[in-house]
Amino acid sequence: MANSFGHLFRITTWGESHGGGVGVVVDGCPPLLELSEADIQPDLDRRRPGQSKIVTPRKETDTVQILSGIFEGKTLGTPISMWVKNEDARPEAYSEMATKFRPSHADYTYVAKYGHRNWQGGGRTSARETVGRVAAGAIAKKLLRERCGVEVLAYVKQVQRITAQVNPETVKASEIEANIVRCPDSTTAGRMMRLIDKMRRGGDSVGGIIEGVARGVPGGWGEPVFDRLEADLAKAMLSLPASKGFDVGSGFNGILMTGRGHNDPFRMKAGKVVTTTNYSGGIQGGISNGQTIYFRVAFKPVATVMHEQDTVDVDLKNTTLKGRGRHDPCVLPRAVPMVEAMTALVLIDHALRHKAQCGQ
Amino acid sequence: MANSFGHLFRITTWGESHGGGVGVVVDGCPPLLELSEADIQPDLDRRRPGQSKIVTPRKETDTVQILSGIFEGKTLGTPISMWVKNEDARPEAYSEMATKFRPSHADYTYVAKYGHRNWQGGGRTSARETVGRVAAGAIAKKLLRERCGVEVLAYVKQVQRITAQVNPETVKASEIEANIVRCPDSTTAGRMMRLIDKMRRGGDSVGGIIEGVARGVPGGWGEPVFDRLEADLAKAMLSLPASKGFDVGSGFNGILMTGRGHNDPFRMKAGKVVTTTNYSGGIQGGISNGQTIYFRVAFKPVATVMHEQDTVDVDLKNTTLKGRGRHDPCVLPRAVPMVEAMTALVLIDHALRHKAQCGQ
Amino acid sequence: MANSFGHLFRITTWGESHGGGVGVVVDGCPPLLELSEADIQPDLDRRRPGQSKIVTPRKETDTVQILSGIFEGKTLGTPISMWVKNEDARPEAYSEMATKFRPSHADYTYVAKYGHRNWQGGGRTSARETVGRVAAGAIAKKLLRERCGVEVLAYVKQVQRITAQVNPETVKASEIEANIVRCPDSTTAGRMMRLIDKMRRGGDSVGGIIEGVARGVPGGWGEPVFDRLEADLAKAMLSLPASKGFDVGSGFNGILMTGRGHNDPFRMKAGKVVTTTNYSGGIQGGISNGQTIYFRVAFKPVATVMHEQDTVDVDLKNTTLKGRGRHDPCVLPRAVPMVEAMTALVLIDHALRHKAQCGQ
Amino acid sequence: MANSFGHLFRITTWGESHGGGVGVVVDGCPPLLELSEADIQPDLDRRRPGQSKIVTPRKETDTVQILSGIFEGKTLGTPISMWVKNEDARPEAYSEMATKFRPSHADYTYVAKYGHRNWQGGGRTSARETVGRVAAGAIAKKLLRERCGVEVLAYVKQVQRITAQVNPETVKASEIEANIVRCPDSTTAGRMMRLIDKMRRGGDSVGGIIEGVARGVPGGWGEPVFDRLEADLAKAMLSLPASKGFDVGSGFNGILMTGRGHNDPFRMKAGKVVTTTNYSGGIQGGISNGQTIYFRVAFKPVATVMHEQDTVDVDLKNTTLKGRGRHDPCVLPRAVPMVEAMTALVLIDHALRHKAQCGQ
Repeated sequence: MANSFGHLFRITTWGESHGGGVGVVVDGCPPLLELSEADIQPDLDRRRPGQSKIVTPRKETDTVQILSGIFEGKTLGTPISMWVKNEDARPEAYSEMATKFRPSHADYTYVAKYGHRNWQGGGRTSARETVGRVAAGAIAKKLLRERCGVEVLAYVKQVQRITAQVNPETVKASEIEANIVRCPDSTTAGRMMRLIDKMRRGGDSVGGIIEGVARGVPGGWGEPVFDRLEADLAKAMLSLPASKGFDVGSGFNGILMTGRGHNDPFRMKAGKVVTTTNYSGGIQGGISNGQTIYFRVAFKPVATVMHEQDTVDVDLKNTTLKGRGRHDPCVLPRAVPMVEAMTALVLIDHALRHKAQCGQ
Repeated sequence: MANSFGHLFRITTWGESHGGGVGVVVDGCPPLLELSEADIQPDLDRRRPGQSKIVTPRKETDTVQILSGIFEGKTLGTPISMWVKNEDARPEAYSEMATKFRPSHADYTYVAKYGHRNWQGGGRTSARETVGRVAAGAIAKKLLRERCGVEVLAYVKQVQRITAQVNPETVKASEIEANIVRCPDSTTAGRMMRLIDKMRRGGDSVGGIIEGVARGVPGGWGEPVFDRLEADLAKAMLSLPASKGFDVGSGFNGILMTGRGHNDPFRMKAGKVVTTTNYSGGIQGGISNGQTIYFRVAFKPVATVMHEQDTVDVDLKNTTLKGRGRHDPCVLPRAVPMVEAMTALVLIDHALRHKAQCGQ
Repeated sequence: MANSFGHLFRITTWGESHGGGVGVVVDGCPPLLELSEADIQPDLDRRRPGQSKIVTPRKETDTVQILSGIFEGKTLGTPISMWVKNEDARPEAYSEMATKFRPSHADYTYVAKYGHRNWQGGGRTSARETVGRVAAGAIAKKLLRERCGVEVLAYVKQVQRITAQVNPETVKASEIEANIVRCPDSTTAGRMMRLIDKMRRGGDSVGGIIEGVARGVPGGWGEPVFDRLEADLAKAMLSLPASKGFDVGSGFNGILMTGRGHNDPFRMKAGKVVTTTNYSGGIQGGISNGQTIYFRVAFKPVATVMHEQDTVDVDLKNTTLKGRGRHDPCVLPRAVPMVEAMTALVLIDHALRHKAQCGQ
Repeated sequence: MANSFGHLFRITTWGESHGGGVGVVVDGCPPLLELSEADIQPDLDRRRPGQSKIVTPRKETDTVQILSGIFEGKTLGTPISMWVKNEDARPEAYSEMATKFRPSHADYTYVAKYGHRNWQGGGRTSARETVGRVAAGAIAKKLLRERCGVEVLAYVKQVQRITAQVNPETVKASEIEANIVRCPDSTTAGRMMRLIDKMRRGGDSVGGIIEGVARGVPGGWGEPVFDRLEADLAKAMLSLPASKGFDVGSGFNGILMTGRGHNDPFRMKAGKVVTTTNYSGGIQGGISNGQTIYFRVAFKPVATVMHEQDTVDVDLKNTTLKGRGRHDPCVLPRAVPMVEAMTALVLIDHALRHKAQCGQ
């Protein structure tokens, strides 16, 4: 079950960094949605290594192939199987990884769990696994947009100490894509870019915060106890490689306020119930209240750095390891489509549940 | 499915604030564990309203009854059904709630979802629902302690701006229980207590951070993709009432570091693989690495305050609402056993999975 | 997970034959259904021991209590917890069972699985566990009737060699309840009754076949691959105590025909697609086709007989065991409401899925 | 969820008869099992069309490719993705199917459910979907054989009225594969073959019974309530195309006996608990008792026949349809590996659960 996500719109991802490829099976996509590879590829291109000078230069075109679930250009309601072949297999580049555990990677924990691992490029622990998520998320985003009027966006909010000013109510996809950092505040984006580039040149890495937004979600999606919308979002985000934290609405900052100021007053506006502030982040008691949903995801600085570091080897001897070749100085620009994908996967699942559960 | 949590150790909670009571069914508890109400009641007492002057004064003894799953003092392997009767039913105290939506509560979103709600005491949205979780968590904690050598603890780390110094590696349960705030740093606890008391007197409320700790988890628990240990913990924590954020290890603060400093070097120590720092929080790539697991949960200031606030009523007219009677100036002391319970539920589920999955 | 059934309308049963009672939590019941104990009790009375001279005389009134999920007479959408107290606890009557495994009961296999068992009245293996299913099934039947126009019925079709003539298209609930065998063919019912009574007097038991029927199911419920309607029905039926077989439509008899004769021709009738025969039993490729669903369930002769039988004891010595006191000469009359309950649980789950999945 | 089967060893199948191919993702296979395509292909060859003169002549080599989950010849514990390309795509052969619903196929019910269908070769409703099951089942069989000492077999027991004599305790795989009917009673196999050939020549079809056997299952696998071993087997078998019935042990025939004769006495034999008869079919109360598990599955005569039959078209007009080209006069020989696969999938899932649940 560990490789599946969702209940009514359920994805199962597979594949290792090196091997036949990576892919996903989407089960539960409603029928009659117009769909082709052209709907999927753009998000894969946003996730792709080598897309700009500030991300890891691995050479993969990541061309997606849909193998099932479509007939005459429309979804059938049957599983949609998607596959991306691996191209850039360079096992030799990783030979040292065969015998040494990279610090703060999953090499050691994999062996602790399975007694075995594919050390080539990290195998299943590689961020390459997210190809399947992003492909599935592109379908979820299209469903949300076309059938529910919901728009899902994410952008880089902070790189180390550099924080952008972005209004989640109004930010546009085109503003996010306007620069290679994927920060819609263009002035700040420039500063971020320079910091990332400095890290790249120094063989080091830097982390930050991505903010995710969902606009147009109607009131009533979510569940009141365990499968709260924010709980499912938290799980979705913490399942992304390198993520270390999640908060929604006022989040960790909200604890500086008192209840009186933190509550979001309800008011009627043009015949609709709205709140005049949105510290709740669009979710109350696990269920959407019709306001904009927004949340933040913390990503650590990626673990591969071009410096000698202490570690142990598979024979349990102390040793050192120095990253070589390619490295990703900042995961954030490529993580933006991942955050969007996971957000969309959570929301479409709750949208379908809501259809099943409603009163009449 | 919304009221169940866990796969191999699965709990299903039920019950409203007012009505027959609240309870839980625990499915998947291994057989032959010695168990009686005496194992459960202490944690319920820690969760109970009215336990101290700084928490909500609702009068409930919350006495648990085990209805099934035990024979001759031992678990049978069959479902354990536990029930706590409601005693303090005062529907009249809530009559205004029948027609007005409390700001930043789930009243409005429930109606948006179900077209209907039990407005007495918040019904299912009441924190009273967590009785079942805490009862089930007590079983999970006992299993972890006795069968896996794992200790689960939580404590109040921060109230508004007041932050405690606590070492997750060494903190003891007795230190946590030494004061009514459940902050093991006794000097800071005094300051926290005064702030909470001030809030109580002013009819306002305050939030903060609880830190959760699991010591003794062996390497190899968890899953590498969606059901990462940190992802399941994140979901568990964000499913608690009033929680707004979660981070693990270095978390949101880790983004201020660079990869070089953030990586946890592996070293051999007494024949075991350890890390010399623990920014990872005991989890790498979703799987435990044998180091102490620690994480933080942000809780907002609770929404019920004794002041007039803007809201709308069920007829969608603007109105105001003032909280009356009891209020909880700070949820943190009572949330400590909830965080422990959810942590234990996540860990025992992964412990059982690990048994099922291991190589031979 | 072993004690839960269903996905969107999920029940979790709990309880042993002797102990605090038996119960069920129903998760996923849509809101705003009028519901009270009066909707549940009649089916429990049909399941109850001691209801007639041909069933086991155990003295239980099986009075159901709803503990949650209802407000002002209507379902809330939250879990419905139902509880039936145990009354007839006579542990002394079972003392021999503490040390000997009853043949063809689950005593031995429980110990093989759990290393432990509640030997009082069979504990969780007792047919008493079905109280929770029948209670939940009563809710499912009401939902199907009121919201989907679907009627679910079951009746005794065969007792040993005595077979009734019943038309599944037209049989009425009142005809089924007209006699204590629950066989709507009254002449045959009399013969069945005499055979069962003979078994009762001789301390022996007899099995037979129950036929289940669902009328009014629209086309399109079900799933094409694993969760076929007939597959879920098969699992539901084989999960009932003492059941040994299931077939749908032409079933085991259909193999005597050839494809030409067995196919159900489609024809238009009053603007609707119908089939002129119904060997398919209302299901084609796992999905309902709008015709009446009917199927058969084989129940073995119950294992408790009043005769000395070879067995082994808990010390793994050969011994003999003779049933004492009460015995149930034929499970069929009491199994009729169980078959109806499980049928309704399968159908309501697929009805809710269908809502979630439909094209627009 | 509809395209997944199993909990701890979970498969998800995908693919249509015409399109990119068919495949399966296996999630939960334990690590360190030696595995290659050579372990999978033989069962696919037994399932393959065109393998003998008595099955459908569709031309597919059904060559399997493993795309993930293996490293250095051993399973990683990560998902195993397997793919079989479609080769024999002849859309023109099915053009009439675009507008007419084949009787007793799933054409009409698919449209009722999804409002849409891939009419080419039945799309997802084609028995071609079982390629993925058989591939996954081959892994499950290998695990059961090597890690649990369990052997899974199936064979043709009956074709229309022709019944074979086979002893489930002693039958060998080589005897089953000794003829193209897959009936280990060679004399009877000859008669079956002649009947099937007669059907083929007459453009008609015939059904029958496959018996499934699992030997070596230890006591204690299974669950006592819903996920009984026989319940999961029933679901597994009724999920196979063309299956109409299932019974276990004495099954439908057991209802002719009385309880006294039907009970299986326990006896000690060489220090082990055995039963002297096995009417229970190796399962008591949902849990294996250490005896041989055996059960029967009824398959209807396949629906495609070379004769004009009444039906309706997509415009809801009465019309007729005559099967053309290839037809499968008897599904049984090819269904044998399907029954084995589903049996193995059920058993391995329960084997892994048992590991997770056992007392210590």
